[in-house]
Amino acid sequence: MARPITLVTLQWSDIPLEVLAEKASGWGYDGLEIACLGEHFDVEKALEDDKYVMGRRDILEKHGLQCFAINSYFVGHSVCDYPIDDRHKGMLPERVWGDGKTDGVRRRAAEEMRNTARAARRLGVANVNGFVGSSVWTNLYWFPPVNDEVVDDGYRDFASRWLPILDVFKEMEVRFGLELHPTQIAYDIYTAQRALDAIGHHPCFGFNFDPSHLIFQMLNPAHFLQSFPEKIFHVHIKDTRLQVDGRSSILGSHLRHGDLRRGWDYVSPGRGDVNWDEIIRHLNKIGYQGPLSIEWEDSGMDREWGAEEALRVIRGHGFDTAHGAYDAHFTPDD
Amino acid sequence: MARPITLVTLQWSDIPLEVLAEKASGWGYDGLEIACLGEHFDVEKALEDDKYVMGRRDILEKHGLQCFAINSYFVGHSVCDYPIDDRHKGMLPERVWGDGKTDGVRRRAAEEMRNTARAARRLGVANVNGFVGSSVWTNLYWFPPVNDEVVDDGYRDFASRWLPILDVFKEMEVRFGLELHPTQIAYDIYTAQRALDAIGHHPCFGFNFDPSHLIFQMLNPAHFLQSFPEKIFHVHIKDTRLQVDGRSSILGSHLRHGDLRRGWDYVSPGRGDVNWDEIIRHLNKIGYQGPLSIEWEDSGMDREWGAEEALRVIRGHGFDTAHGAYDAHFTPDD
Amino acid sequence: MARPITLVTLQWSDIPLEVLAEKASGWGYDGLEIACLGEHFDVEKALEDDKYVMGRRDILEKHGLQCFAINSYFVGHSVCDYPIDDRHKGMLPERVWGDGKTDGVRRRAAEEMRNTARAARRLGVANVNGFVGSSVWTNLYWFPPVNDEVVDDGYRDFASRWLPILDVFKEMEVRFGLELHPTQIAYDIYTAQRALDAIGHHPCFGFNFDPSHLIFQMLNPAHFLQSFPEKIFHVHIKDTRLQVDGRSSILGSHLRHGDLRRGWDYVSPGRGDVNWDEIIRHLNKIGYQGPLSIEWEDSGMDREWGAEEALRVIRGHGFDTAHGAYDAHFTPDD
Amino acid sequence: MARPITLVTLQWSDIPLEVLAEKASGWGYDGLEIACLGEHFDVEKALEDDKYVMGRRDILEKHGLQCFAINSYFVGHSVCDYPIDDRHKGMLPERVWGDGKTDGVRRRAAEEMRNTARAARRLGVANVNGFVGSSVWTNLYWFPPVNDEVVDDGYRDFASRWLPILDVFKEMEVRFGLELHPTQIAYDIYTAQRALDAIGHHPCFGFNFDPSHLIFQMLNPAHFLQSFPEKIFHVHIKDTRLQVDGRSSILGSHLRHGDLRRGWDYVSPGRGDVNWDEIIRHLNKIGYQGPLSIEWEDSGMDREWGAEEALRVIRGHGFDTAHGAYDAHFTPDD
Amino acid sequence: MARPITLVTLQWSDIPLEVLAEKASGWGYDGLEIACLGEHFDVEKALEDDKYVMGRRDILEKHGLQCFAINSYFVGHSVCDYPIDDRHKGMLPERVWGDGKTDGVRRRAAEEMRNTARAARRLGVANVNGFVGSSVWTNLYWFPPVNDEVVDDGYRDFASRWLPILDVFKEMEVRFGLELHPTQIAYDIYTAQRALDAIGHHPCFGFNFDPSHLIFQMLNPAHFLQSFPEKIFHVHIKDTRLQVDGRSSILGSHLRHGDLRRGWDYVSPGRGDVNWDEIIRHLNKIGYQGPLSIEWEDSGMDREWGAEEALRVIRGHGFDTAHGAYDAHFTPDD
Amino acid sequence: MARPITLVTLQWSDIPLEVLAEKASGWGYDGLEIACLGEHFDVEKALEDDKYVMGRRDILEKHGLQCFAINSYFVGHSVCDYPIDDRHKGMLPERVWGDGKTDGVRRRAAEEMRNTARAARRLGVANVNGFVGSSVWTNLYWFPPVNDEVVDDGYRDFASRWLPILDVFKEMEVRFGLELHPTQIAYDIYTAQRALDAIGHHPCFGFNFDPSHLIFQMLNPAHFLQSFPEKIFHVHIKDTRLQVDGRSSILGSHLRHGDLRRGWDYVSPGRGDVNWDEIIRHLNKIGYQGPLSIEWEDSGMDREWGAEEALRVIRGHGFDTAHGAYDAHFTPDD
Repeated sequence: MARPITLVTLQWSDIPLEVLAEKASGWGYDGLEIACLGEHFDVEKALEDDKYVMGRRDILEKHGLQCFAINSYFVGHSVCDYPIDDRHKGMLPERVWGDGKTDGVRRRAAEEMRNTARAARRLGVANVNGFVGSSVWTNLYWFPPVNDEVVDDGYRDFASRWLPILDVFKEMEVRFGLELHPTQIAYDIYTAQRALDAIGHHPCFGFNFDPSHLIFQMLNPAHFLQSFPEKIFHVHIKDTRLQVDGRSSILGSHLRHGDLRRGWDYVSPGRGDVNWDEIIRHLNKIGYQGPLSIEWEDSGMDREWGAEEALRVIRGHGFDTAHGAYDAHFTPDD
Repeated sequence: MARPITLVTLQWSDIPLEVLAEKASGWGYDGLEIACLGEHFDVEKALEDDKYVMGRRDILEKHGLQCFAINSYFVGHSVCDYPIDDRHKGMLPERVWGDGKTDGVRRRAAEEMRNTARAARRLGVANVNGFVGSSVWTNLYWFPPVNDEVVDDGYRDFASRWLPILDVFKEMEVRFGLELHPTQIAYDIYTAQRALDAIGHHPCFGFNFDPSHLIFQMLNPAHFLQSFPEKIFHVHIKDTRLQVDGRSSILGSHLRHGDLRRGWDYVSPGRGDVNWDEIIRHLNKIGYQGPLSIEWEDSGMDREWGAEEALRVIRGHGFDTAHGAYDAHFTPDD
Repeated sequence: MARPITLVTLQWSDIPLEVLAEKASGWGYDGLEIACLGEHFDVEKALEDDKYVMGRRDILEKHGLQCFAINSYFVGHSVCDYPIDDRHKGMLPERVWGDGKTDGVRRRAAEEMRNTARAARRLGVANVNGFVGSSVWTNLYWFPPVNDEVVDDGYRDFASRWLPILDVFKEMEVRFGLELHPTQIAYDIYTAQRALDAIGHHPCFGFNFDPSHLIFQMLNPAHFLQSFPEKIFHVHIKDTRLQVDGRSSILGSHLRHGDLRRGWDYVSPGRGDVNWDEIIRHLNKIGYQGPLSIEWEDSGMDREWGAEEALRVIRGHGFDTAHGAYDAHFTPDD
Repeated sequence: MARPITLVTLQWSDIPLEVLAEKASGWGYDGLEIACLGEHFDVEKALEDDKYVMGRRDILEKHGLQCFAINSYFVGHSVCDYPIDDRHKGMLPERVWGDGKTDGVRRRAAEEMRNTARAARRLGVANVNGFVGSSVWTNLYWFPPVNDEVVDDGYRDFASRWLPILDVFKEMEVRFGLELHPTQIAYDIYTAQRALDAIGHHPCFGFNFDPSHLIFQMLNPAHFLQSFPEKIFHVHIKDTRLQVDGRSSILGSHLRHGDLRRGWDYVSPGRGDVNWDEIIRHLNKIGYQGPLSIEWEDSGMDREWGAEEALRVIRGHGFDTAHGAYDAHFTPDD
Repeated sequence: MARPITLVTLQWSDIPLEVLAEKASGWGYDGLEIACLGEHFDVEKALEDDKYVMGRRDILEKHGLQCFAINSYFVGHSVCDYPIDDRHKGMLPERVWGDGKTDGVRRRAAEEMRNTARAARRLGVANVNGFVGSSVWTNLYWFPPVNDEVVDDGYRDFASRWLPILDVFKEMEVRFGLELHPTQIAYDIYTAQRALDAIGHHPCFGFNFDPSHLIFQMLNPAHFLQSFPEKIFHVHIKDTRLQVDGRSSILGSHLRHGDLRRGWDYVSPGRGDVNWDEIIRHLNKIGYQGPLSIEWEDSGMDREWGAEEALRVIRGHGFDTAHGAYDAHFTPDD
Repeated sequence: MARPITLVTLQWSDIPLEVLAEKASGWGYDGLEIACLGEHFDVEKALEDDKYVMGRRDILEKHGLQCFAINSYFVGHSVCDYPIDDRHKGMLPERVWGDGKTDGVRRRAAEEMRNTARAARRLGVANVNGFVGSSVWTNLYWFPPVNDEVVDDGYRDFASRWLPILDVFKEMEVRFGLELHPTQIAYDIYTAQRALDAIGHHPCFGFNFDPSHLIFQMLNPAHFLQSFPEKIFHVHIKDTRLQVDGRSSILGSHLRHGDLRRGWDYVSPGRGDVNWDEIIRHLNKIGYQGPLSIEWEDSGMDREWGAEEALRVIRGHGFDTAHGAYDAHFTPDD
C-alpha cells in the first residue's frame, strides 16, 4: 500500500482549518499535518477542553482526512535560541512570550513543548515535528574564531534543556522529529551525529527528514537517510533550487525569498534540485512507512495551483519497492 | 613594472616582527603588511613614541622590505558586532576590552580605529585593511524570519558608527579597505552595494579585495572586480578550495579548519578554486597598481614551505597587460 | 488569470488560415499570431479592402481564437540587410522585390513596414513582431579584423532607416518587437543595449523575447529578461537543444536543420535546453501579462503531434506568481 | 503510424503466459516478446507439436497482442561461453545441460539455437534476440596482460560456432539480434565492428539495440545507432542509472542489483540516464519501424506499477519524424 | 628528438625581422615562421632579388634560427572572399589591391599566391600557411534560410580559383596548409572534408592545424587530428579560453579582443582550454615530426613576458612517445 | 622531514638493476622498490646465497639509494587466480609454473610467497607489495547471474590460501600490501572491507595504496584513505586519465594501452585525474610516513623523460602538514 500524502498547514495559517481541510480534501490529499499555530491547533485549549479536541477531529473526519503528526517550530526553536528578541515576539503565544526576557521565554517554551506532547496524545497523534534552537548556531567557524569549548557548551546546553522535555514525550508515547536546518543544533550529517550523541540517543528523539534544507548546504539527502535509517520518524516533501552563477551568494545576500537573484530558494516539489526518485528508493530501503507530508513553499507560484501540482508529482513517485531483485527468477535454486 | 608582493604578518604573530622580516626577505618577498596585533605593531605606542615608529621602519629597511598597508581585523570588527562576548576578549587590547560590556567595547573600538588611522599616517602608510562588524549578520533569512526593517536598521547602525571614523581617515589621508566576509556588513556584491550606499560612498571607504571569502559563497570574484573597480583599494591573495561531495555542508559543519571533511577550507594560493589568471587580468583591466599581499592560511601544509611556494606561484601570474590588442598591427589606419 | 497561449502561423503557411484555425482551436489554443505571408495576411489588401480585414476577423471568431500580434520577418529583415540577393527574392512580395536592386528593395521594404503598422491597426492588433536586418552582421570579430568605426556605422544606418518607420508605429499606437537573432542588429545583451541606445529608446521599439536564439549562443535567457524588463513587448515559446560533443560545431557546419549531427537545433518546447520554469518566474516578476506564442519548429517530430504536446507542456508551466512570499504569514506585524 | 510497444516476458517467467498476457493487455501493451524459457515458449515442443504452437498463438490473439520476436539469452550465451559451470545449470533446459561438460554443452546449445530459428518460423516470428557468449570476455586488458593473439582467437571461435547456426536462420528467414552486453563477444562500438567483421557481415546477424548496457560503460547509445544503422534488427527499452559518487565502483562492487550503494543499476524507463528523446530521433532517422520492446527491470520498484508507468512514458516519446524540415516552406524555389 | 619550436612573426610585424630574431633567439626559440607582410618578407623582392633572399637567410643563421614555413593570410583570404571592401585595403600590398574592385583583387591575389610558392622555394622553405577565403561564409543556416545550391556553388568557386594555384605549388614542391577558421571555406570537420573533396584531394593542399579556432566552436581538436592524419602539414600553438556564463555570447557580441566580457578570447598557450597534453599524444600517434609554431596572441598580457612563458610551457609538453606499451616487458613470447 | 620518493623497478625489468640504479640516482630518486622478477631480485637465490643478497645491497649503497619494499605481482596473483593458463606461463619462474596445471601452480605460488617473506627479511626489507588473485573475479553481476553463495566461496578460498602465507609474514616481521585492482579479491571500498573481514584482519595484511586503479572505476581515492587509515602499509604513485566521450567504453574495448581511443589509460603522474594535493593531505592526516613509490607507466611518453618529470611533480607535492590550524594564534587562551 502506498504511503499517505498529507499537507502541512503552517503555510496556510491565514485560512481557518475547516476551510483548508475542504480544499485539501478536494485536491486529493489523504491528511493534514496540523501546525500548533493560531486557529489551527491551540495546545492550551487542547489540554483544558475535550470538546475542542473532538472538534478538531470532526473537521478531519468530515473531509476524510487523517492526521499523523502535529508540528511546533517557533516554540521549539525558542527553547535553546539565544538571544531572544523582537523577531520571536510575533511568533509565540503570549503565554510563552510573557515579558520577553531571554531566560524566561526559554523556560516557558520548554514547558509549552512538554504540553505539546500531552496535547498530541489527546489528539491521538504520535509524532511532533519541530525545531529545537541552538545557543551556538551563530558560532560558525567564521569570525571571530570560536574555540572548541564554546561549541561543546552549546551541545551540553541543548541536552540539558531538552532531556526533561523528551522524558514527557516518552511518558506520552509521542516522538519528536527535529527538522535539520541552519539555526538548529543539527543541520547536517556531522552535527546530527553530535546532537544524537549529546542527547544520549534518547528513544523519542529523531528526525523529521526534509531534504530542502540539505540541498542549499550542498548536501546529498540520500546520504542522510543512509546515515540514520532508524531515526527517520517523519518525512517532509519540500524542494529547493540552487542558482549559484557567480553573482548570487549561497548565503542569501540578505535578499527575501522570491527574489530571483537569490542563490537558492524553495520551489514547489519537482521543480528544484531534490531527486525524489532517489529519496523514495531510500525510504523503501529503510522501511519507512509513514506519511509524505508536503510542506508547500514557493514564493513564485500561486499557492493553490502549486498544492495540486505537488500532490500529483509526489503521487507519481509513490511506488513500493520490488518484492525481489529483478533477476530473482533467473537464479538457479540450490 | 610588476606589482610588489607582500606578506601579511597576522598569521605569524607568534614570531617577532624582526625574525619574520628576515624570513620573508629570504624567501623573496618585497614587503610586509603589518598587523596591529601584539608585538608587530602597537597603535598606542605609535601615537606616543616616535622612536617606536622609527624602530619598526628600521626593521623593514634593514631587510629591504616595503610597507603599503597595515591591518586591524579584531578591533574594526568590534565596532558594530553584536553582542560582544568572551570570544572578543582574547583578541582585543585590554584598553579596548575594558569591562567587556557591549556598548563600551564598541565605543572604545571606534576610538581605537580613529587612532589606527593616525598611527598609519605616522608610519607613512596610506592604507588600513580590516573588518567593520555588523549588528545584523545573524539575521540572515533563515529562521526566525526577519523583516526588512531589521536589516535596514543594521545598515544605518553601520553608517552612524563608521562615518565619524572615516572622517579621521580622510583628515589623515588614509584609506580604509573592508574585506568582504560573512559576519561583516558586506559579504557579497549585493550587500557591498548596500554598504556603499549606506555610507554615502565616502571617499576613504573601499575594499580590500580577498577572493577566498567569495569562493566559499559560490561567488565569482571577477564579477566583484567588475562591479566596483574604483573601490579596490588593496588586494589579498588567499585561496579556498571547495569540497561539496554531498556529505560536507557548505556551512562548515562546526568542524575546525584543517579537518579534511569540511565543505570548504583555505589552502595555499594556487591549490584552491580561485582562478588567479582571471583575477590578474581584471586587476590589469581596472588599473590596480598596488601590492598583492599574500595572506597565507592553510591548515594542511607546513607554513614556511607554503609561504615560499605561494610567492613563486603568484610571481608566475604577475604579468602586465598587453600594450594593445594583439591584432592592433593588422587594423587598417583610417 | 493565466496568460493566453497562441500559435504562430508562419511555419504553417502551406495551410489556409481557415484550416489552421480549426486545427489550433481543436488542440486547445487560445489564439493565433498571424504571419504577414501568403494567404494568411496580406498587408496591401488589408489597407485597401475592409471586407478582407473583416473576413480574417471572422475566421478567428468562428473558432473562438484571439489575435494579439502579427509578424513580418522577411520584409523587416530586408530594411537593413546588405547586400540583397537571390535569397531574398522568394521570401518577399513582388511589390517589395521589384527589380531586386539593393537600395530599392530596402526602401520598398521600409514602406511596407510602415504599411504593416497601419494594417495591424486596422486588424485591431497592437503588436508587430519581426526582424530589422543589419548592414554589419557579417563583420563579427573574426576575419579580417574590423575596426570600430565600421560597426558604429552599422548602428547609425539602423537608426536612420527605422526611426521613420517607428514614427508611423507611434502614430498607429502599435509597437514593434524585434526578435534577437544572429543576422540582426541585436543578437545578445550587449548588442541589444547598443541598438536601444542607437534608436534613442524609441517608445514603440522593444523586443519579442524568444529564448531559442539565445540558447545556441550560450546565453542565459533569464539574464535578458532581467536586463530589459520594460522592453519585453511579446514572448515566443521556442526551444533549442545543444549537442556540443567535440564533433559538432556551434556554427552549424553547413548542415541542414534536422540533421542529427548539428551542434544545435530547434526542438519542440520542453525537449530542449530552455528552462521554462525559470522563464515563467521571470515573466511573473516583470509583470508580463501578454500571450505566450508557440512558434513550433522541430525537424525531427511530426508537426501536429508536436503542436499538441507543446501546448500541454506550456499549460503545465502557466502558473501565476504567489500573492506574497511564502513566509509572509510568519512575519510579526510592526 | 506509431511503432508497437511490446513487453519482454523474460522477467515474468514465474507467471504463466496466459496470465501475463491478460495483464499486459490490460495495461495497454500492443504485444509480447516471448522468452524461450520455462512455460512461456518451449522450442522442443514447438517443433514437435503443432497444437502447442497454435495454443501460444491463441493466447496472444485472445488478448489482442502481437508477437514480433522471441528471445533466447541463456542458450545463446552458452554457445561460446567458457568455461561452463554450475551457474549455467539452472538456466538451461536439461536437454542442453546434459552432463554439464563444457564442450558438450556448447555443442548442444548450438543445436538448440538452430532449433530456435526453426521454432520461430513455426510461430511466425522473424526475429530472435539473444546472446552469443564469448570465450575471451574475461581477457580484458587488466591483469594478467593478454596478447593480441588470444583476443583474435576469441573472435575466430565465435565465427566458427555461429556461422553454421546463422545459416539455418537464413534458411528459415529469421534474423538473430545480438544484444550488446559485457560478457558477450561485442559490448561496445569497437567490439561490435570486430564481431561483424569476424562473421563476414552475415545478413542474418545484427543487433537487438538495448541502450541500458551501453550507459554503464559510459557509451553514448546514439553513437551506436549512427555506426550501424542497417544492423538494428530490434529495439529493447531498458534504462540504467549511474551513481558514481566516489564510493561506488562502476564495476558493481560484487553488490546485488537493488543495493542502493551500487555504482549503476537498472531502473524503470525514464528514470535513468538514457535520453529517450534522442534515441527516438535516431530511430526515426535510420528508418527503424519495428517494435519498442520494454524489458522491465528495476529492483527498487513494484513490478506491475512499473510496467504501466514505463508504457506511458514510452508512448509519450512515440512521435514520428517531421515530413520535411520546419523551414521547408521558407525556401525559395529554384 | 624533440620537435623544433618556432615563433610566428605576424603579430610582431611592427618590429624589424632582425630585432625580432635577436629577441626570439634570446628567449630560446629554435626558429621563426616568417610572415609575408611588410618588412618581414616581401614576395616580389624575393622573386627579383637573390641578395634579398640571402639577406633574410643571414639574419636567421646569425641567431641560430631555422625556418620551416612562411605564411600569407591576407592575400590568400582575398582569393575567394566576397565582397572585397575597405577592410581588405590596409592589409594587402598595393600591387594586389590596385583599384580595389572585387574581381580584380581576387585575380591579383591568386597571382600573388602563385608567386608566394615560388618565393618559398627560393627561400628554401617547403610550407606556406594561410587562408583561402570563401564566397559563402556569410550563408550560414541562420537567416534568411539558404538553399543547398548556394553552398555547393561556394565550394565549386573555391576549387576553380585554387586548383591553378596549387599546381604551381606542386611544381615548386611546396605545400599549402589552410588554417581552419570561420570565414574560410573550411572551419570544422564536416566542412574540411567537403573542401578536400572539392579540391580533389590535391597532394599539395592540407592543413596548418591550429586548435584555437576549434575551441571557440566547441570542437575537440583531437578529433580533427584523428580525422585527417595525413593532411596535417604544419602545427600552430595558439590557445583559446571560453567564458560562457550566460551573459557572454559565443559570437563575440561585437566586443573587441581583450574585453574581459567576451564569450571567448585568445590567451597565451597553457592558459586556455586547449588540452596540450592530448594534442601532443595525437601528434606522436600520427607521426607528425614538424615544428610547433607558437602564434602568440593574448590581449591581456605583456607580449614579451608571454612569448617566454609560452615557450617554457610548450617545451614541458615536448615529450616523445614511448618505444612500446608500458606492459611490453610483461607479455609472454610466443 | 619529507617522505622518500622511490622508483618501482618492475616496468624497467629489461635493464639490469645496476644500470637502473645509476639512472634513478642521477634523476634524484631516494630509493628503489625492487621487483621479484628476472635479474632484479631472485627469491630462490636470496634464500640460498648470502653473497647474492649482499650484492643487491651493494648496488643500492653505491648509488645512495634506499629500499623500503620489494614486490611480487605475478606470483601472488597466481595463488588464487582461476583458471591458470598460458598467460601465466611467461610471467612465472619455471619452478612455480612446473607442469602448468591449475592446482599445482597455485600451491607452488603459495610456497613462493612464503619464501618471498623470508627473502625480504634477509634483504632487510619490511614490506612486500603484490597481488593475491581471486577465484570469483569473473563472477561480476553481469551474465550469467551469480548467486551470493558463489561469491562467498571466493572470499573463503582467499582466506584459506593466504592465512598460512601471512603467518610466515608475521614470523618474519614483514607486512604484505595488496594493491587494489580489478581481477583481485579486493578492488574497491566495499570489497576491501569484505577481504579484511574474510582474513580476520590479520595484522600483516593491509594495502599498497595505488589511486590509479580506483580512478578508472570512478572511485574517489581519498575516500579509501578515510576508510582504512591504519591499513595503508605503502603508497604507489601512478596516475590514470579518463576519456569517456560516449564512444569509448570504460571497459577498455579490447584495445591495448596506448591506443588513444581507450576509455581510460595510465599516464605519467600529474597528467591524469588523480588529485595529488588531496592525496598528500590525507596521507598527512593519517600519519603515513613511508615512501611515495613512483610506478611509472605511460604508453604515450618516453620512459626516461617521464621518470624525471614524475619525480619533479611529486617533490612539489611533498609538503608536511601544518603544526597547528592557521588560526591557532588568534584563539584566546582560557
